[in-house]
Amino acid sequence: MTKGRIIEFKALGVVESRFEKQEGTPIQGRMAPEEKACIRIYDEFADGLKDIEGFSHLYIFFTFDRAAGGKLLIKPYLDNIEHGVFATRSPLRPNPLGMTIVKLDRVEGNCLYVSGVDILNGSPVIDIKPYVPDFDYHQPDKIGWYNEKRQKDGLVLADDRFSVPGAVKP
Amino acid sequence: MTKGRIIEFKALGVVESRFEKQEGTPIQGRMAPEEKACIRIYDEFADGLKDIEGFSHLYIFFTFDRAAGGKLLIKPYLDNIEHGVFATRSPLRPNPLGMTIVKLDRVEGNCLYVSGVDILNGSPVIDIKPYVPDFDYHQPDKIGWYNEKRQKDGLVLADDRFSVPGAVKP
Repeated sequence: MTKGRIIEFKALGVVESRFEKQEGTPIQGRMAPEEKACIRIYDEFADGLKDIEGFSHLYIFFTFDRAAGGKLLIKPYLDNIEHGVFATRSPLRPNPLGMTIVKLDRVEGNCLYVSGVDILNGSPVIDIKPYVPDFDYHQPDKIGWYNEKRQKDGLVLADDRFSVPGAVKP
Repeated sequence: MTKGRIIEFKALGVVESRFEKQEGTPIQGRMAPEEKACIRIYDEFADGLKDIEGFSHLYIFFTFDRAAGGKLLIKPYLDNIEHGVFATRSPLRPNPLGMTIVKLDRVEGNCLYVSGVDILNGSPVIDIKPYVPDFDYHQPDKIGWYNEKRQKDGLVLADDRFSVPGAVKP
C-alpha cells in the first residue's frame, strides 16, 4: 500500500549560508548567481562525494524546515493570485522538499562550496545529484501563470509570507 | 540540531506506469519520451493541482521504494567504474529520492497524464513542481565522468543491478 505511507529521510548534511530568515532571501538561486554557501556533508556520507568535482552544476535537495507548510492553495512570491501548490515553487508545500540547482566552485573535504544559493542557513540536506543537460534540458511550450509574471532581470527577494511565527532555528 | 534529524515525508499520490521491475525500465525519462503514465494524486491533496495544466513540463518527485539503498560508492548504469553516489543519478542512494522531468499531456480529475516516464508502477509521489526555464536552465561547463559515457541516441534501459532480491511490490 502506498496511500498513507510515510517515508523517512535522514539529514545527510547541512547548508551553511548567510540567510537566517526567508525575508530577503533570493526566491530562486538562478536569480542570485553570486550568493555563495557551503553544503557540508556529514562524515558518514562523505564517501558519496567521490568524483563530484567533475560536475560544474548540482541539484541540492533540502527541506524547508522553517516553512509553515500544509496549505494546498497558495499565493507564490511572484503572484498575488492563489494557485495550486504543485503549480508553484513555493516553500510552503505538503512535503517540505526544496531543490536548488547550484554551481559547484570547489570541494574541500566534506564541504561543497557552491554559488547561486537561495537556501536558509541550517537547512538539512537530503540529497545531491549532478545536473546533466542530456537528462535535464527540456523545452516547455507552456509555463502557466508564471509567463505573465516572470521578471526577466534583477534579483527577486522573498518576503515573510511563508515564515512560521516563533520558529526555532536549528 | 540538524545532524541525525529524520524528516518524514508522506505519500501524496502514486505513479501508475507499465514498469513493474527495474530491469528494462528507461534509466532516464528524457530518453523515453513516448513512455506514458498517470500520476494519481490522492483526493486530500488534489486541490494542489489547480492551474497545473498551464505548464507543459513538471518535476515529479518520488521514492525509489524498491531500490536497495545505502551504499556510498556505486557503479551507475552508464559506467562500470565506482563513483560517489552524489555524482550519479543512481536509484541506490542514502535517501531514496527520485526525480523525473515529464511532459504533461493532460489532466483528468486527480490524474496527471504524462510522457517521458522512467518510474516503477506503484512508486509513492512526494512532490510535484513546475519546470520553469528561468529557474532551471543552466549551462554546465563540466559533466564529469558522464561526458565520456554519454549515449547520444537511443533508449538506454536499466539492468537489475539495483533491485532488492525478494522485494515486495506495493
